[in-house]
Amino acid sequence: MELTALTDEFDRRDWQHVTETDDPVRFAMVGLGWWTREQAMPAVASGDLCETTVLVSGDREKAESVAADSATVDHAVTYEEFHDGAASEAYDAVYVVTPNARHLPFVETAAELGKDVLCEKPMEATVDRAEQMVAACNEHDVTLMVAYRMHTEPAVRRAKDVVDAGYVGDPVFVHGNMSEPILELVPDPDQWRLDWELSGGCATMDIGIYSLNTARFLLDADPVRVQGSVASVRPEFDDVPDEHAAFQVDFPDHTFAVCTASQNAAMASHIRVTGTEGEVRVEPAFYPWDERRLHVSHGGSDIDVSFEQIDQMEEEFEYFSHCLLTGEDPYADGEHGLVDIRALKGVYEAAEDGRVVELG
Amino acid sequence: MELTALTDEFDRRDWQHVTETDDPVRFAMVGLGWWTREQAMPAVASGDLCETTVLVSGDREKAESVAADSATVDHAVTYEEFHDGAASEAYDAVYVVTPNARHLPFVETAAELGKDVLCEKPMEATVDRAEQMVAACNEHDVTLMVAYRMHTEPAVRRAKDVVDAGYVGDPVFVHGNMSEPILELVPDPDQWRLDWELSGGCATMDIGIYSLNTARFLLDADPVRVQGSVASVRPEFDDVPDEHAAFQVDFPDHTFAVCTASQNAAMASHIRVTGTEGEVRVEPAFYPWDERRLHVSHGGSDIDVSFEQIDQMEEEFEYFSHCLLTGEDPYADGEHGLVDIRALKGVYEAAEDGRVVELG
Repeated sequence: MELTALTDEFDRRDWQHVTETDDPVRFAMVGLGWWTREQAMPAVASGDLCETTVLVSGDREKAESVAADSATVDHAVTYEEFHDGAASEAYDAVYVVTPNARHLPFVETAAELGKDVLCEKPMEATVDRAEQMVAACNEHDVTLMVAYRMHTEPAVRRAKDVVDAGYVGDPVFVHGNMSEPILELVPDPDQWRLDWELSGGCATMDIGIYSLNTARFLLDADPVRVQGSVASVRPEFDDVPDEHAAFQVDFPDHTFAVCTASQNAAMASHIRVTGTEGEVRVEPAFYPWDERRLHVSHGGSDIDVSFEQIDQMEEEFEYFSHCLLTGEDPYADGEHGLVDIRALKGVYEAAEDGRVVELG
Repeated sequence: MELTALTDEFDRRDWQHVTETDDPVRFAMVGLGWWTREQAMPAVASGDLCETTVLVSGDREKAESVAADSATVDHAVTYEEFHDGAASEAYDAVYVVTPNARHLPFVETAAELGKDVLCEKPMEATVDRAEQMVAACNEHDVTLMVAYRMHTEPAVRRAKDVVDAGYVGDPVFVHGNMSEPILELVPDPDQWRLDWELSGGCATMDIGIYSLNTARFLLDADPVRVQGSVASVRPEFDDVPDEHAAFQVDFPDHTFAVCTASQNAAMASHIRVTGTEGEVRVEPAFYPWDERRLHVSHGGSDIDVSFEQIDQMEEEFEYFSHCLLTGEDPYADGEHGLVDIRALKGVYEAAEDGRVVELG
């Protein structure tokens, strides 16, 4: 593998062949929490292939207030109006970022209106609802992508280049962790992430998905079995089983991923592949504000690569928009997302029953 | 926690209060493989509290040849002669470093002769034989220590200081890995580590024990349940189930350790504790020739501590000798070692049955 592959144009968009358009993808943002306002909208504003034109919220005043601060938004509508087709001529695609268990109706409406969909991860709160989401998008022939940030994060793409080049040999193990003190980040004990009905799960579903999904991406493989343990200790987590979660994912050819996720631990993240010839690790890995580093070990030496950080949400929106503009299928389509939901729900089942759960 | 605790006298022996003796502990080395010759004997020669006086081997010529290169060895005896009590006046303690399933008879003989025992890890190939070892040492009132290197490795002791000081908050997760290409290190497909009867297990027993045991040390806790997966792929590993192993160890209070071990992967090792307030990691961690580093994360910052490396085997022999000279009980006594054997055997059982195994 060429050394320049890890030093030159580190943030190259090797997926991109259309770099400008006179007809950017117009997004309706569905759900106006801090993530949409502070992460997604600035990212879209910076992007070349997309723009935000419509805001959708349960709170009309909030939608109008946020719209007033945007140069491109022409419409602020309520959830009810959205379902009635309001302003549907003003957007091409939706970004759905409501609580997990409320994704489905917005995606169904978008699909019925012929709009493409970028839906936050995890897709939905249950396997059944996630499958309904895929069916709705298929029925109306709209593109569905699940909003994983790691597939277009340069550090992860370069780590995948390292793996794909055979530089670490055959992958043997993956270690992954994502942890955060959710009650310090969002100091509200009634937040939806701690509500099983709204979230479908806590640490496992919300952030354990990063280790699982990034392992899938790096290994180019899907899980075959899962096992693990979950625990909730603090009373704020009484409604969910997994304040903390540790789970193991067996991939084909006996590649094993061990993953941890906590909503009540120090903010930290890493993903590592140990192979027959070396290791590659991204640490920190998963938070958009991280100064990510790429670490590569081979032949008894260690390389530590630092690089210019990009805006993960801009990369993601540009990638999805690029797919729509070129007619290409996104990597993380609905079937891709379903694999995660089935595996993560398998973790809860395995933890409850104390046994391995075979997938698919 | 004082910053000097991580910078000044990093390799302090906080267990030591006797630093010299006119009466060093005289060791009989039982088993003269490369580890004894190249790691243990030089370490003892460098130590202040011990010396090697007797060599015991299945091969008299080998024993005599090695003895000829040592200034302190007066006796070279065969295994049979050892069991007959040969040269027993010339040593105070034995270091047993034969294949796992051959530890027990040497320890039994040593105990009957009233000699203290430093026995390599894992203690034995089965729980039953390990229990017999403990019983024999108890019966004859000799001291038994299992030869873990990590309890006296300064990087691990300092990591434990960090945890004990509460600097990472309450421990939530441990990640551990140890991997090596055993067939490159020991290019013999008939070696004992690949023979279930002689080893009692491969990756899990031989090197998975490092992550498990170091997690116990750092957490100051014993495991309550295990689960995991093992796999052997290459034909050289046909006699053992675990060329590769991934296993999860649940500790009290819902602290979860995820561990991997491979005898057919790149040489690599790490141990990491993620807590509610930060992280501490030793990487590389487990190989005596590593340039270990201590990494501490807290409050959004990372500290990377480099330090002078010590000889792990010298620390271990000095510690054991210190225990014998002072009459103090070693940390890793027989009961301590048994906990590992039971847990590791539980991993094989869990992997075979696809279910969690509760311990003790």
